[in-house]
Amino acid sequence: MRYNLGVAKQELQTPKGFRDFLPETAKIRNFLLEKLRSSLELFGFEPLETSAIEFAETLKGKYGEEERLIFEFTDKGGRLVGLRYDQTVPLARVVASNPNLTKPFKRYQIQPVWRAENPQKGRFREFIQVDFDIVGSGSLISDAEILSAAIFATKSLGLSNFVVKINDRENFKNQPIEVVRTLDKLEKIGEDGVMSELNKFGFNKSQVKSILKKVKESPVTSNVKKLFNLLESYKVDRDKYAYDPTLARGLDYYTGIIYELEVEGYRGGSVGSGGRYDELIGKFSGSKTPAVGFSFGLDRLVETSQELGAVKPFGPKTKILVTIFGGRFISDSINLVGKLRNDGINSEISSEFEEKLDRQLKYADNKKIPYVAILGPEEIKEDKITLKNLSDGKQELVTYSELKKKLQK
Amino acid sequence: MRYNLGVAKQELQTPKGFRDFLPETAKIRNFLLEKLRSSLELFGFEPLETSAIEFAETLKGKYGEEERLIFEFTDKGGRLVGLRYDQTVPLARVVASNPNLTKPFKRYQIQPVWRAENPQKGRFREFIQVDFDIVGSGSLISDAEILSAAIFATKSLGLSNFVVKINDRENFKNQPIEVVRTLDKLEKIGEDGVMSELNKFGFNKSQVKSILKKVKESPVTSNVKKLFNLLESYKVDRDKYAYDPTLARGLDYYTGIIYELEVEGYRGGSVGSGGRYDELIGKFSGSKTPAVGFSFGLDRLVETSQELGAVKPFGPKTKILVTIFGGRFISDSINLVGKLRNDGINSEISSEFEEKLDRQLKYADNKKIPYVAILGPEEIKEDKITLKNLSDGKQELVTYSELKKKLQK
Repeated sequence: MRYNLGVAKQELQTPKGFRDFLPETAKIRNFLLEKLRSSLELFGFEPLETSAIEFAETLKGKYGEEERLIFEFTDKGGRLVGLRYDQTVPLARVVASNPNLTKPFKRYQIQPVWRAENPQKGRFREFIQVDFDIVGSGSLISDAEILSAAIFATKSLGLSNFVVKINDRENFKNQPIEVVRTLDKLEKIGEDGVMSELNKFGFNKSQVKSILKKVKESPVTSNVKKLFNLLESYKVDRDKYAYDPTLARGLDYYTGIIYELEVEGYRGGSVGSGGRYDELIGKFSGSKTPAVGFSFGLDRLVETSQELGAVKPFGPKTKILVTIFGGRFISDSINLVGKLRNDGINSEISSEFEEKLDRQLKYADNKKIPYVAILGPEEIKEDKITLKNLSDGKQELVTYSELKKKLQK
Repeated sequence: MRYNLGVAKQELQTPKGFRDFLPETAKIRNFLLEKLRSSLELFGFEPLETSAIEFAETLKGKYGEEERLIFEFTDKGGRLVGLRYDQTVPLARVVASNPNLTKPFKRYQIQPVWRAENPQKGRFREFIQVDFDIVGSGSLISDAEILSAAIFATKSLGLSNFVVKINDRENFKNQPIEVVRTLDKLEKIGEDGVMSELNKFGFNKSQVKSILKKVKESPVTSNVKKLFNLLESYKVDRDKYAYDPTLARGLDYYTGIIYELEVEGYRGGSVGSGGRYDELIGKFSGSKTPAVGFSFGLDRLVETSQELGAVKPFGPKTKILVTIFGGRFISDSINLVGKLRNDGINSEISSEFEEKLDRQLKYADNKKIPYVAILGPEEIKEDKITLKNLSDGKQELVTYSELKKKLQK
């Protein structure tokens, strides 16, 4: 075969805003996901998976102005479809189309979503969301459950300096939706930014000033008060949540308590957010079904956990590399690696029939595999194995059961 | 808010060929994935994730006639892109664009792929593949590693009646690619089907007969012989693999040993397949990089495991529902559920402030939660909890530490 050396460089890349995760990062992602998953199961949430592709009309009319970011296309059958934009609208569709689900329906969902964002630091076009929601309960106990689970899950990742900012959409009930969406950007664009954006919507300077003043001075609503009492009964640390009357949230579908989780010292934005949305499911089912939920962004959790040292790079899971002496001893090495695996010890074997030991050791070293086994004529004669510890270079002659005991530690 | 009762029914559905997985099935999927993941880590494979969207030119010219099934569209920036069609081409791109990866590079990848198949029983347009590959080793030891891992992982799912059919593309080296692709369908369409398809490509009856005869009588190649010796050293059960000279595999990129894993009694097709592809990565990198790998289809594994009883439906992970007596006792119940979770016991709490106990028990019953806790005035006075076992209806008054001990069992 002749190689196409003129291969377009583009072929080697992902499209802008899309990424690959090499093992070093993928291992951290899996580790954090495992922690989140078990925290959520501790709270009684069960897994749900939905289709990556939805009919465009399922997605439309649900999110507000963000809708322009939906990845939309016409499939080969001529249907207008879109890629999953979040996991809340798909959940609403699933609940509406499965009326017999036991309520409250508590589910978690860990899948990628796609948004045609303008790529910038910390914004990608494909990212994994970790959602959990309670559907079919309008009670504040469910809001408190969600918040308590969010805080528990965040702590389970080893993060400690964080706070959930809490507000009530009630505080914006007389504001037009443009005002709410603009206020949502307050932290990012500042008061001047809010001023100039609202000017465009026809508000003059003094009107904006009065809106800002009114919002900032909104007293704690009755629901926020009740919610805080419930969180106290859960014994949630008091420094992990706070009332913030300026918190707005951009999505159209929120109807009650809303929140954002911020990690101190992390500049990539909130690592999670959510709230109550009592009207969305009714749009699909025709009958009112209250719901509340939370969504973590996996990327930001990974980034903040790494930046704050809450998670360290992982070593390999492989405990030992079985080297190959070559010639008639190949089958002995293969036999050994098979035995180790049957005994539950993560192990690899060198991949070439005849390769210098040095090169085999180099592979183990590059991969940071802690031990290598050597099986040559001497070892075979004595029915033993040379075990070499790569961190101190020491080696010893051991029986298989000694080897096994050592590696199972 | 007024409900849009005239909601189009389409909105409640997924597009044809796409599916949701409710918790009962999602739990089984997660369980099997966990087993596969730990088997693959036992063999030294590490996780990799790639982008869902690739430039169309990355995907094109790699798969052969199957390419018409790629979900292709123009994004908002006018770029022609496609959804991930398999995990092998993305792996090849990743390896080519990361030349410093330690070789052999052993990775596993568990992500959805999308194919615009004509939906039919067992064929979907979105499905999860579980891939594992060894890149950078042309040695048969790597082919044997892959096969040994595939067989080990399948056994770890509790399946026992299965066989990996093995062949060598060497057996087809003088056949045009159309013949190989048609022979790949032999099992599905039979000899008559192969006859009529090859007629279309200009082969007459006697030519096809002679091709079929030649293929069926192909003796074991030298590489298959060596591979079988290696599998013997691994002590892989001899009934788990067999030579099958008619096995062809449809994808264009295979260059050596190929295989398909079939479960006896399962009519949905092979549950996994793979082979050696020594030329594909070079198409991206410009330098020859041998590789070999295997891919499980998660759906088929789930289906066959359920059909053969290798996996039973799961009960809930939740061990106990803490009921709410109401009034001033609400905080006691919340406090109890918080304590249970801190002690690592999966638990739920009822979601309403005031609800009849009957209805609360009904929820636990529907969800098959084994225990409920009741905390009313009597219990609070004695600092105890009434624990009710829903399977036999018995209830007892216990202290928290007794409760905890019981549930941790």
